[in-house]
Amino acid sequence: MKITKLTTALASAALAVSAPVAAELTTDQRAAVERVLESYETALNAQDTESILGLYTKDGVFMPQHSLPQEGIDAIRAAYTGVFQAITLDIDFIVDEIEPLSNDWAYARTRSEGSVTINATGDVASEANQELFLLNRQEDGSWKIARYIFSTTNPPRN
Amino acid sequence: MKITKLTTALASAALAVSAPVAAELTTDQRAAVERVLESYETALNAQDTESILGLYTKDGVFMPQHSLPQEGIDAIRAAYTGVFQAITLDIDFIVDEIEPLSNDWAYARTRSEGSVTINATGDVASEANQELFLLNRQEDGSWKIARYIFSTTNPPRN
Repeated sequence: MKITKLTTALASAALAVSAPVAAELTTDQRAAVERVLESYETALNAQDTESILGLYTKDGVFMPQHSLPQEGIDAIRAAYTGVFQAITLDIDFIVDEIEPLSNDWAYARTRSEGSVTINATGDVASEANQELFLLNRQEDGSWKIARYIFSTTNPPRN
Repeated sequence: MKITKLTTALASAALAVSAPVAAELTTDQRAAVERVLESYETALNAQDTESILGLYTKDGVFMPQHSLPQEGIDAIRAAYTGVFQAITLDIDFIVDEIEPLSNDWAYARTRSEGSVTINATGDVASEANQELFLLNRQEDGSWKIARYIFSTTNPPRN
């Protein structure tokens, strides 16, 4: 096992753990995460790269299948631009879990189903994926996607 | 967007957020997470399902590509048993990030590279994946895999 990069943020992150919040705040937290997922679904189906970028943290990482991890907002922009040139999605997200990890972190585990159109040919195929989102609360109180990975749940094509 | 299951654990999880720990504890925390990843790599290459199961929480979720999410230790056992009947892996993990999310949660972002042997035919192919692990500290202080998803970083086969 090789370790390419180790954060030095561990100590400061531990110190930044804040006091427990009231239960009604965590209801807001969950609702805010749901809104991020809904916005992502809408922007993905609309081929709306700029709206998607607004949902990511500046140092976010997008981990699309068949690609190395795309680190940082510029790499993420290029990746979605490439995706939307190649395919058009019409999918619905199903939320299996939204769980808090701390006052400032949460994860969402989802699946998505629908169709994908290959833009070059017009061919339409069924699309089914599973997703794991790590979300981070920003200083302004908004939640953004910090890490996001998906993989197909369809059987192999060959 | 459909929401199939929403945890009611939000309030209790928020209340369970504990006090900041000393910096030297977070160094231990990182080392402990590294050991989990090393143990996973070793067990994966050894086809050792029982050792892998010992690295997961009882309610863990394994999200293998080409499969729906496998929820809970029994489903996880069946999934790895199936994987090891089909293929033999010889891969190395590369750790890109290990980051704390709270005193009891951390994530690891990794890649893995090596070869996969199709047991039925003996055919060997190159294997390259990216992974996101969510790890949860247990009451005994050990860290376990709570959520784990990977996807290939190789180009599509067709």
